[in-house]
Amino acid sequence: MKLCRFFPDRLGLVEGQTVYDVTPALACVPQATYPYPLGDQLIAHLPAVMAEVQRLKATAPALNLNDLALLLPFANPGKIIAAPVNYKKHLQEVLDDPNLHHNNQINHIERAGLFLKAQSSLVDPSVGITQALPDRRTDHEVELVVVIGKTARNVSRKEALDYVAGYCVGLDITIRGPEERSMRKSPDTYTTLGPWLTTADELPDAGHLDLTLSVDDEPRQSSNTSELILGVAALIEFGSKFYTLHPGDVIFTGTPEGVGPVRSGQTIRASVQHLGELIVNVH
Amino acid sequence: MKLCRFFPDRLGLVEGQTVYDVTPALACVPQATYPYPLGDQLIAHLPAVMAEVQRLKATAPALNLNDLALLLPFANPGKIIAAPVNYKKHLQEVLDDPNLHHNNQINHIERAGLFLKAQSSLVDPSVGITQALPDRRTDHEVELVVVIGKTARNVSRKEALDYVAGYCVGLDITIRGPEERSMRKSPDTYTTLGPWLTTADELPDAGHLDLTLSVDDEPRQSSNTSELILGVAALIEFGSKFYTLHPGDVIFTGTPEGVGPVRSGQTIRASVQHLGELIVNVH
Repeated sequence: MKLCRFFPDRLGLVEGQTVYDVTPALACVPQATYPYPLGDQLIAHLPAVMAEVQRLKATAPALNLNDLALLLPFANPGKIIAAPVNYKKHLQEVLDDPNLHHNNQINHIERAGLFLKAQSSLVDPSVGITQALPDRRTDHEVELVVVIGKTARNVSRKEALDYVAGYCVGLDITIRGPEERSMRKSPDTYTTLGPWLTTADELPDAGHLDLTLSVDDEPRQSSNTSELILGVAALIEFGSKFYTLHPGDVIFTGTPEGVGPVRSGQTIRASVQHLGELIVNVH
Repeated sequence: MKLCRFFPDRLGLVEGQTVYDVTPALACVPQATYPYPLGDQLIAHLPAVMAEVQRLKATAPALNLNDLALLLPFANPGKIIAAPVNYKKHLQEVLDDPNLHHNNQINHIERAGLFLKAQSSLVDPSVGITQALPDRRTDHEVELVVVIGKTARNVSRKEALDYVAGYCVGLDITIRGPEERSMRKSPDTYTTLGPWLTTADELPDAGHLDLTLSVDDEPRQSSNTSELILGVAALIEFGSKFYTLHPGDVIFTGTPEGVGPVRSGQTIRASVQHLGELIVNVH
């Protein structure tokens, strides 16, 4: 199942170019009183939402995908975890270019560890990216994003995929510079997800997916998730050793070689095979 | 005003050893439908909550502080931002000890940037800390914590204190090792706050506060916030250049020298002048 959200606060079931408006299924997500529960509650209640979406489809209004302004497929991710230098050729690219490593030490991912992006950096794809520090270089990074569906702690690589709710395309927008990744990758609008959530049952193997990114139709990044140093299951194993993964936590799995600057007025098109194309403007 | 939360989900007004149960003031915090708003909604509605607390005090049940199990003073912080190596003597301590720097480069804070801790690492002080990777060293770090009260973007040092809702004592518990700070400082239970929120009107100057930490009554850390490299206002200026600060975001201002390991069975006592003492067990 492919689930999207679209303006204003609607839930959609995507089938080709048709989007069924299944917003009433959001009633499966309970109201919250303070303190609110941790993590994304649409994802936490996904099985119930999916059953209701299936039931509603027969009588749901059918819309054209091209007419809709896409929102984040779920709005309250908990941890936004990301993998640094997790494609072999990107690791070499970073080591080779002082504008990328800024004389900081670059470690293998298992030594570098995973980093966090701020939830406040999330932006709806149809809103787009606003450059944060115009005198600094801002780069595009396309990534396969894994969405955690069940509470996971000390999960082995072998069992890891049982904890996946689904997948998205993600942009991990980045200011280059010497600061901690968790700061220079967290300006407002520097994280987006979409174009929809593809549930895990539709994608049994995320390990052999082409991913590409172009800027104003110029190809910039092109690789395959088979080039990941730590694949999806290994990342879940690695992360869940350090902390509990909660429903709605996401893992940005890393970006391949070809990262480069974007500037105001440009359009980024990022796609991952089977997961759709994310189209995002830079302001 | 000193506001605490205590088991089970109660709100308290602290005056000396007396805690007035003012839980009905939580009605000022609205119910949320999905998607939930960003950041802590108790802090976002703090002026209304404080007015209601004041009104309720006259008829509120009076309890003894010692009888209560303290919870986090607010439960849904947005960004948990933290300052690395922000005390001069701690910077030297890190440089001098390979067990602290792990052959990673140590930068001045303005080059290193601020880092993020995961919300899932938060634990109620009365629950205590559980060591995450028992074969790795886990250290205590006492910190002055600033609670953001108003949306702040590109705020100057001069205006920065207008955006502060209040202050707490914080523990930034840390696994030593080479990984990104945002990972090895984010295991479950590795972040706590308390013992209560002291609202900003009670603390006009956070720049000259003694802070201490002891483990099983052995003194470990002792300094004064006047030793901070970047003080509270400078940290708000620095952070708000990169991202918007939202109500309920917190900034851990950094820890002074004297960091060291803790182990199961020990009790940490962390205090900041005027803000109270946080007593936390290690399991």
